[in-house]
Amino acid sequence: MAVMRAAGEREAAGHGVLHLEVGQPSTPAPAVARRAAAAVLEHTPLHYTDAEGTVSLRERIARWYAERHGLAVDPERVVVTTGASGACVLAFLVAFDVGARVGVAQPGYPCYPTMLTSLGCEPVPLEVDERTRFQPHPTHLAAAGHLDGLVVASPSNPTGTVLDTDALTALAQWCNDAGAWLVVDEIYHGITYGTSAPSVLEVDESAIVVNSFSKYFSMPGWRLGWLVVPDALVDPVRRLAQNLTVAPPTLAQVAGLAAMDATDELDAHVARYATNRSLVLDGLRRCGATRVAPSDGAFYAWAEVSHLTDDAQALCARWLDELGVAVTPGIDFDPDGGHRWVRLSYAGATEDVTEAMERLVHWCTTER
Amino acid sequence: MAVMRAAGEREAAGHGVLHLEVGQPSTPAPAVARRAAAAVLEHTPLHYTDAEGTVSLRERIARWYAERHGLAVDPERVVVTTGASGACVLAFLVAFDVGARVGVAQPGYPCYPTMLTSLGCEPVPLEVDERTRFQPHPTHLAAAGHLDGLVVASPSNPTGTVLDTDALTALAQWCNDAGAWLVVDEIYHGITYGTSAPSVLEVDESAIVVNSFSKYFSMPGWRLGWLVVPDALVDPVRRLAQNLTVAPPTLAQVAGLAAMDATDELDAHVARYATNRSLVLDGLRRCGATRVAPSDGAFYAWAEVSHLTDDAQALCARWLDELGVAVTPGIDFDPDGGHRWVRLSYAGATEDVTEAMERLVHWCTTER
Repeated sequence: MAVMRAAGEREAAGHGVLHLEVGQPSTPAPAVARRAAAAVLEHTPLHYTDAEGTVSLRERIARWYAERHGLAVDPERVVVTTGASGACVLAFLVAFDVGARVGVAQPGYPCYPTMLTSLGCEPVPLEVDERTRFQPHPTHLAAAGHLDGLVVASPSNPTGTVLDTDALTALAQWCNDAGAWLVVDEIYHGITYGTSAPSVLEVDESAIVVNSFSKYFSMPGWRLGWLVVPDALVDPVRRLAQNLTVAPPTLAQVAGLAAMDATDELDAHVARYATNRSLVLDGLRRCGATRVAPSDGAFYAWAEVSHLTDDAQALCARWLDELGVAVTPGIDFDPDGGHRWVRLSYAGATEDVTEAMERLVHWCTTER
Repeated sequence: MAVMRAAGEREAAGHGVLHLEVGQPSTPAPAVARRAAAAVLEHTPLHYTDAEGTVSLRERIARWYAERHGLAVDPERVVVTTGASGACVLAFLVAFDVGARVGVAQPGYPCYPTMLTSLGCEPVPLEVDERTRFQPHPTHLAAAGHLDGLVVASPSNPTGTVLDTDALTALAQWCNDAGAWLVVDEIYHGITYGTSAPSVLEVDESAIVVNSFSKYFSMPGWRLGWLVVPDALVDPVRRLAQNLTVAPPTLAQVAGLAAMDATDELDAHVARYATNRSLVLDGLRRCGATRVAPSDGAFYAWAEVSHLTDDAQALCARWLDELGVAVTPGIDFDPDGGHRWVRLSYAGATEDVTEAMERLVHWCTTER
């Protein structure tokens, strides 16, 4: 967040910034989604919907699992939420009691442990690296002491790595044996490169799935996401959603429903991310980075920069100041080892990514 | 909720329903708000905003307090949220630790105690009646044992009663003396009849204010609200909002900003509510109801129906079935005494309220 603030201040002062720190698409919602929203906005009062979302959107999300994963998901198990954040809050509250110990990957999305802590749970960091593709593995879990739950993301933020079917199966089995809830954040599904991300529902119907319209569907500011929960949690999650949220945003539900049919437009974004990804991975190599997480999906590269610095925060501040390139220091994702890592986002325009990587490569090869 | 479901089923079966159970305006957002949203929707990608909301909306909300209450509120103290629900979750999490005892009025909005329970706190019901205008009073607080906080709503749902300046001052003083947080839900501000609702900020800068665009501003499905917090809570609430929500909905913030200048259109809704209110209060009198809360504000009448039944749920089921009139049984707001009370909403169209009250009066005076 400090980098984003500094980048904003730099822009406000009239200097350009190439944004490799952002965690969201630069593109708007699909045209068909915006048209659907505009039509409803013009003609219909926007009332509260059911707390679990509209029937039509829940049915469409269920069909998404049939189309993408060959799964028959009962729409009753789908709960539409206010973004993946809203989904996580509901999932954590319904699955975990106060004091619950919940494993989270480190490096990982920092909001998981912060959310868990604010809800009275104890996040248990699981230090991951390339030996398990920067994802938790049963060996981490066995070493973590008693766990009431595990939260993983596939593809992961910040590393981009995907849990394949075997890896998901192993985690699901461990959690089932341990009586621990498995929460899988699939928010970056749809954005993968040369591979595809299986849903945990393909291997375990008792897992809790978090997903969102913010990444693949290019609708971050709309605040729309969803949960798929096992049958036993449907009523508890709906009651909780009713009491904690009333309902997710109505117009976003209309737009999201339309967006799910806009795969051509959305896949074109993914093709651009793929181009950008090559530029970033190539640039990192030319920068001398040798430890870079396999960027299977999402729009991030996670790279060690210990050949450049022991203080990635200071490095990112210099890059912003000297090059106008905003990059996220790893400390945001790993309070222990992150001072030697950075996260580069390639969600922006290809020309911006090209220019940013040229500046970084020039800096790394001549000025440092 | 059972009544709303039954009413929905009745409508789905092709029968008409007059909706005196709804908790939201029947009208859309102000025209100027919808135009502002449409323009942004057409031309701008909807990215995440700052977690605390846009600067322009926070400044406009601060100015609202100057315009309405003659108060200078620093925009830094304003945190835009995903509805009043999102505001309550943030306020409760930042103010109360696990195990905190928090007073709530009974009858009162049922989501307060449910939210508190789900966050690990202990709601302490304060039984209120006409002796204190159906609002908590220091006498209730003194009798409740140790309290870490108090949540009140003014105007109240379901009773409509307003806390005047003296009443707010007394509660604020008690809370300050006891070291308890005072949270005042001002979601129905702007909707009052022959009186005005003071903000707690007029008497106590250390209180936490919850508000929303869902009622006076006629934007329920947009999911937009706000908090005003004391200086000491600004950073904690922002951090929490960042981690729990990322940001409130972007398009709603654009529309909400415009809606705050649409007071002519919005005050016309309030004038309609005032007409409806007279019809409902007159009808209740003709129905023989003698205990009716003073409906100072909001769009609810809270009426005892013990001369008709000891089971308001069954009564409401009969009214829906026999008359096509949906009314909320009091049990939703008061698990102890609510079986002898009902809540009538008059947020709908005047012709619907007229017809509904005629049917109820006819039933009460001839058929029972």
